[in-house]
Amino acid sequence: MTFYFEIVKTQGNARAGVLHTPHGDIPTPVFAPVGTQATVKAVPPRDLSEIGVPLILANTYHLHLRPGDELVRDLGGLHSFMGWHGPILTDSGGFQVFSLAEINRIDDQGVTFRSHLDGSKRRLTPERSVEIQQNLGADIIMCFDECAVPTDRAAVERAVRRTSAWAARCREAHPDDARQALFGIVQGGIFEDQRAESAAFLRSLDFPGYAIGGLAVGETKNEMYRTLDVTTPMLPQDKPRYLMGVGDPDDLVQAVVRGVDIFDCVAPTRLARHGSALTQSGRLNMRNLPFATDSAPVDPGCACYCCRHFSRAYVRHLVKAGEILGAYLLSVHNIHFLVEHMRALRCAILEDRLPEYAETFLRLYLRTA
Amino acid sequence: MTFYFEIVKTQGNARAGVLHTPHGDIPTPVFAPVGTQATVKAVPPRDLSEIGVPLILANTYHLHLRPGDELVRDLGGLHSFMGWHGPILTDSGGFQVFSLAEINRIDDQGVTFRSHLDGSKRRLTPERSVEIQQNLGADIIMCFDECAVPTDRAAVERAVRRTSAWAARCREAHPDDARQALFGIVQGGIFEDQRAESAAFLRSLDFPGYAIGGLAVGETKNEMYRTLDVTTPMLPQDKPRYLMGVGDPDDLVQAVVRGVDIFDCVAPTRLARHGSALTQSGRLNMRNLPFATDSAPVDPGCACYCCRHFSRAYVRHLVKAGEILGAYLLSVHNIHFLVEHMRALRCAILEDRLPEYAETFLRLYLRTA
Repeated sequence: MTFYFEIVKTQGNARAGVLHTPHGDIPTPVFAPVGTQATVKAVPPRDLSEIGVPLILANTYHLHLRPGDELVRDLGGLHSFMGWHGPILTDSGGFQVFSLAEINRIDDQGVTFRSHLDGSKRRLTPERSVEIQQNLGADIIMCFDECAVPTDRAAVERAVRRTSAWAARCREAHPDDARQALFGIVQGGIFEDQRAESAAFLRSLDFPGYAIGGLAVGETKNEMYRTLDVTTPMLPQDKPRYLMGVGDPDDLVQAVVRGVDIFDCVAPTRLARHGSALTQSGRLNMRNLPFATDSAPVDPGCACYCCRHFSRAYVRHLVKAGEILGAYLLSVHNIHFLVEHMRALRCAILEDRLPEYAETFLRLYLRTA
Repeated sequence: MTFYFEIVKTQGNARAGVLHTPHGDIPTPVFAPVGTQATVKAVPPRDLSEIGVPLILANTYHLHLRPGDELVRDLGGLHSFMGWHGPILTDSGGFQVFSLAEINRIDDQGVTFRSHLDGSKRRLTPERSVEIQQNLGADIIMCFDECAVPTDRAAVERAVRRTSAWAARCREAHPDDARQALFGIVQGGIFEDQRAESAAFLRSLDFPGYAIGGLAVGETKNEMYRTLDVTTPMLPQDKPRYLMGVGDPDDLVQAVVRGVDIFDCVAPTRLARHGSALTQSGRLNMRNLPFATDSAPVDPGCACYCCRHFSRAYVRHLVKAGEILGAYLLSVHNIHFLVEHMRALRCAILEDRLPEYAETFLRLYLRTA
């Protein structure tokens, strides 16, 4: 069996583990940078390896539309296509269909939509989503789900119903998790009873991992934390838990404390392209004037390529001048920051000092965030 | 003496040499990629080192305006600022003033213009250009010159006169070439008598190197080659010769055969950002449909990072999707291609087989260019 999850140590609800996949072992908790179009924006794969990125995410919706999942399959799959030989996770395409495409019709069978690229008419169903993800060949694939506004009770109830029905169909389309593990996605917005209904049904399908979907899409941070408080205990202890689309450093701490193992988010690379750097003491806007003459590294304690070789003054110059190298250097830094952040959280769990570590981190980080 | 030029071998008019500079030895003939705003666009310095780039060029006009040459000086100079510890050449700013800025007045003393960034009024004179370049701290700096349309006799005559007067003032402002070598620039367009007048005057100032300016700006390739035929013999045998702004692979061959040692051009990186790859058999437009399913490297014989790890299909996908990684990979490839091209030309001179090598290269390259 090439895919399995091993818990090495727990402290409270938090867990330090190892997720074994066909393309390598992933220490958890883990943050996955997003490579939407089969590239983590601006960062070559060898930099990801050097940083020690354990897992990346790619987007099914985007790759289905361009270059096409069958082409990727014919070229040997996503790992080979993008030159990244570590673990990959693909989402189901559902979230992008609902947020990017022009929707024609949503029914219990699936979603009909128009491509945001060329307006072509497309249809995505649970079976089709699984088939596309099989073509792409990621190590972890996701059930096709419906994501609702988490505070809209009626929408959430409908989303839970559909997500359950679609999860059953995805499971049937992908019964064997040896080469690709199919994760279920718990919906339910901020409503405990809906989360419970969704989680109970998904558990009956015995997935090798469970995602918590429908968060970080409009609710407050406290609503998100309270939802995690009630939801993680509904999930199997021995399976990995993945909180989708969350990447703020403080949210990562709060979710790890509550028992989440896997995360992904576009934030570190998107922030980088907008000139922001993540540091222990909050975000830095590298456009700020005081950096113009600052010969210190972006983050003096950091060991990434950017911080080892370049000054804030240089990075500010690149950002102000619109140079690609600025986006590259800050992307490398921000990804490195989150990888180290997860390493530190894991280490704190292993050494039974997570509460103290979390408290110290949050105090420093939120002071200036 | 930290700056000197050594000719290792000649064949016909062509020369294989070594240019010794305070930041390292440059084997010649050499091609310098352009780092306009203190970054070779999209390419981190460590990639330039890995490729074996012997020299880069940075633009005085751009760096004077942003981030400012005094700031660069205060931060330790351009090498330290941009994290590139190999040799750097800066141009004089003249060409950019004439091509990018809104000119208010050109007189015998200098040029008054408005910045293309913020409209601020500025003045550049020979003395000021040298001072800015001293602040930047490149290994090779250039005389402030006037570049005219090379086929416009009246404009060329005026440009030669001004360029001579300005060269004398630059020489006076920078008499010591030990740490920074000041090169003169021969103007004269396509007119042999004007080139002769310009070259004779510059030789009287005893520069450690001589550039041929005012070419590749509108004249035909044959006019450029004929101008080189007559101009290189006017320059001292024992000093390096630099043809400014030329980087087409076939032009590099033609100019090396005619005795040029140094080149720079934005072409390899600009072409890359537009999706074009340089190869022995001409340029490839990576957007072309046949590449969509092509699992071969961009250039099967190439050993660059792009060609070692990625397929044409992947690079095409990145280019079509507008991903930064596409610009990066093709920039790395194109720079690597020109570095290897110059290495091969140097090797052919050393082995007394330049005519055969040049003939073979041009036949293959121009077939599909």
